[in-house]
Amino acid sequence: MDQILLAHGSGGTLMHDLIEQLFFDAYGSDVLRRGDDAAVLAIPKDASSLAFTTDTFVVTPHFFPGGDIGKLAICGTVNDLATSGAKPLWLSVAFVLEEGFAIDKLRRICASMAKTAREAGVTIVTGDTKVVNRGQGDGIYINTSGVGLLLPGLELSGANCRPGDRILLSGSLGDHGIAIVSSREGLSFSTTIESDVAPLCHLVSAVLVAAPNTRCFRDPTRGGLASTLNEFARQSGVVLIVDEEAVPVKDQVRGACDMLGYDVFQVPNEGKIVCVVPAEEAEAALTAMQGSRYGKDAALIGEVVATDHAGSGSPRVYIRTPYGSKRILDELVGEQLPRVC
Amino acid sequence: MDQILLAHGSGGTLMHDLIEQLFFDAYGSDVLRRGDDAAVLAIPKDASSLAFTTDTFVVTPHFFPGGDIGKLAICGTVNDLATSGAKPLWLSVAFVLEEGFAIDKLRRICASMAKTAREAGVTIVTGDTKVVNRGQGDGIYINTSGVGLLLPGLELSGANCRPGDRILLSGSLGDHGIAIVSSREGLSFSTTIESDVAPLCHLVSAVLVAAPNTRCFRDPTRGGLASTLNEFARQSGVVLIVDEEAVPVKDQVRGACDMLGYDVFQVPNEGKIVCVVPAEEAEAALTAMQGSRYGKDAALIGEVVATDHAGSGSPRVYIRTPYGSKRILDELVGEQLPRVC
Repeated sequence: MDQILLAHGSGGTLMHDLIEQLFFDAYGSDVLRRGDDAAVLAIPKDASSLAFTTDTFVVTPHFFPGGDIGKLAICGTVNDLATSGAKPLWLSVAFVLEEGFAIDKLRRICASMAKTAREAGVTIVTGDTKVVNRGQGDGIYINTSGVGLLLPGLELSGANCRPGDRILLSGSLGDHGIAIVSSREGLSFSTTIESDVAPLCHLVSAVLVAAPNTRCFRDPTRGGLASTLNEFARQSGVVLIVDEEAVPVKDQVRGACDMLGYDVFQVPNEGKIVCVVPAEEAEAALTAMQGSRYGKDAALIGEVVATDHAGSGSPRVYIRTPYGSKRILDELVGEQLPRVC
Repeated sequence: MDQILLAHGSGGTLMHDLIEQLFFDAYGSDVLRRGDDAAVLAIPKDASSLAFTTDTFVVTPHFFPGGDIGKLAICGTVNDLATSGAKPLWLSVAFVLEEGFAIDKLRRICASMAKTAREAGVTIVTGDTKVVNRGQGDGIYINTSGVGLLLPGLELSGANCRPGDRILLSGSLGDHGIAIVSSREGLSFSTTIESDVAPLCHLVSAVLVAAPNTRCFRDPTRGGLASTLNEFARQSGVVLIVDEEAVPVKDQVRGACDMLGYDVFQVPNEGKIVCVVPAEEAEAALTAMQGSRYGKDAALIGEVVATDHAGSGSPRVYIRTPYGSKRILDELVGEQLPRVC
C-alpha cells in the first residue's frame, strides 16, 4: 500500500498498522507504545508550574529549502514552550491526512520530526490520526501540542517590558517566509534562501543563565517582528523603538522583499527569537545568544521607552531609519503570506 | 464580515479581532486572555503525575442530532483524560478553518464548546487558528489537546485486565455513529436517533470512588466496542467474553444497523465508557454508573478469562450469543463509517 486510505483513520487494523509500522518506528517512545488514550507522565518533585501550548501546521509546500512540515511542527511548539521559560518535555502529534497522500512522504516527514525532537530533547508521548476525503485537505496538516516545566521563580510575559529595557533579536529576519514563497512561486535567486526553522530551547536556556532578569521572549512567526513588537507594546503599555540599521537581514532576503513588495518586518520567521532584557543584562544576553548554535548573528536592535518623541505614551512601535527619522511599525492588517506555517 | 478570510489566519489585526471578539467572548479564561504563546499553569502540590492527550475532530455534518463538532471536540478529549484516571483540567483548542466558513457557525460551535467545558469543569487555556484555502478543508477541523492530573496511587491501563474481572458498559451502544450516518444520508426513522456525545469525567470519578481497584476505562469511539475490547485483550494477553444479550442497544439503532449492514459492536460511541473491574467490585461500580447522569442504562456485559473454550490463551474477544454459541468479535479491518469524529 503506498497511499493513505480513508480506512487508515477508522480505528481498525489498518490504523493500528500505520501507527505501529510508521509512527512507532519513527518516534515511538515507551509511553507512546503503551497505546493508552492518554499519556501518563511523572511530574518531577520540584516542578511548581507547567507550560502548555498548541499549534497546527498547514504549510505548503510540505518540503522546502531548509526544512519540511514535520520539522516545522516540532520546532513551532518547542519554541512556544521555550519562549514561556519552560523546558519543553512532552509533545503530542495529531495528523489530518488527505485520502491519497503518499505514505512515503509521511514516512519522510515523521523521520524529520523524530530527528528534530531528539535535538530539542522532547519526547512524543501521544497522538491521533484522522483521514479526510480527497479534496477536503491538502495532503497533510499536523497539530502538535506541548507541555513543559517552568524553571522555578521565572515569570516571563509580554506584559513585563519596562522603559530602559533593551530588545534583542537572535538572527536575520525573514528567511522562513521568503524561503516558502520562493519555493511555492518557483522564484529563483542567485543563491537558495533557506528557511531558518530551528528548535530554540537551548538558546533560550543560555540566555536565561546569562540574563536571569529577562522580561520575555517571543518567536516572531506569523505577522513577523511587527506583530511581536506590537504585542509587547500593547501587553506592557509601552513604546518600543527599533533601529532599522541594527536589524540583521540577508541581502537575498532584502532583494526578494523589494521585488515582491513585502515589508521584511512582517515576514514570518521560524528560527528566531525576540527577547527583552533589562539594560544591565543586555550585553550578557547578547553574548549568550551569539555563542549558541542558532544565534550567531544575534543583535541588539532597540529599546523600550515610556513615551514617544511627541510625548505620547500610547503603546506603539517605531522604526528609527538610518536618516534619523522615525516611522510607525504597524501590524499586518490583512494577509501577506498565507500558509507559511 | 460574515465569512472567514485567509487573512484571519495571518497573525495580523484581523486574527486578533477574531480571537478577542469571538473566542474570548465564548470561552476566554484569564490565562487565555493573557495572550502569551503558551499558558503557564500552577501545579497543585500533591500532584505526582499528569495525563496528556490529543484528538482532532473532522466530523461531518458539523451539527447533528444531540450535538455538534464543538461539543464533540471537548467531550472527546475530556473523556480520553478521564479514562486514564485523571481529573481533566486544561484544554487547548486549535482550529483549521476553510476560507469562506460562516462566522455565525463558528460562533455557535464556540458557544457549544464553552457550555460543554463548563459542565466538564475544564478551562480552555491556549489556542491556535489557521485558515486554509477554499477547497482544502471542509469548513472546520478542531484539535483539542488536554492535560489532567492523576489521582495519587492510581495506575489504570488496558494492560491490567486479569482473569475473573468483569466488563461493564455505561449505556447503549451505537447511538453516535448511527446519528451521524442518519443525518448525513438523510435517513429518517420513526424517532430521531441522537448522538450520545457527553463528558464522562464525573461518571468515571464516581466509579473510582465505588471501585477503587478498577483495572481500566476506555471510551469505545472509532472502531466501537470491538476495537476497545480487542485492545484490552491484546494489551493484557487475555480472552474477553461478552454476553450479546447483556449489551444494551436501542431498538432504532438495532434497526438502523440491520438496514445498513453495520455490526453495532463496531459502531462508534462518544458518550459511553467500558470499564474492567475485579469481580468483587463489579456490583458497586455498576451501581455508581447507574446513579450518574450519563450511566442510567449501564450494564455488566462480560468477563475476562485466561483461556477460551478450546483452551487457547491467545488474546481474543468472544461474543456469547443467546443460543449459547460463541463467535469471535473481530476488530474492524477496513473502513465502515468515515468522519464520525
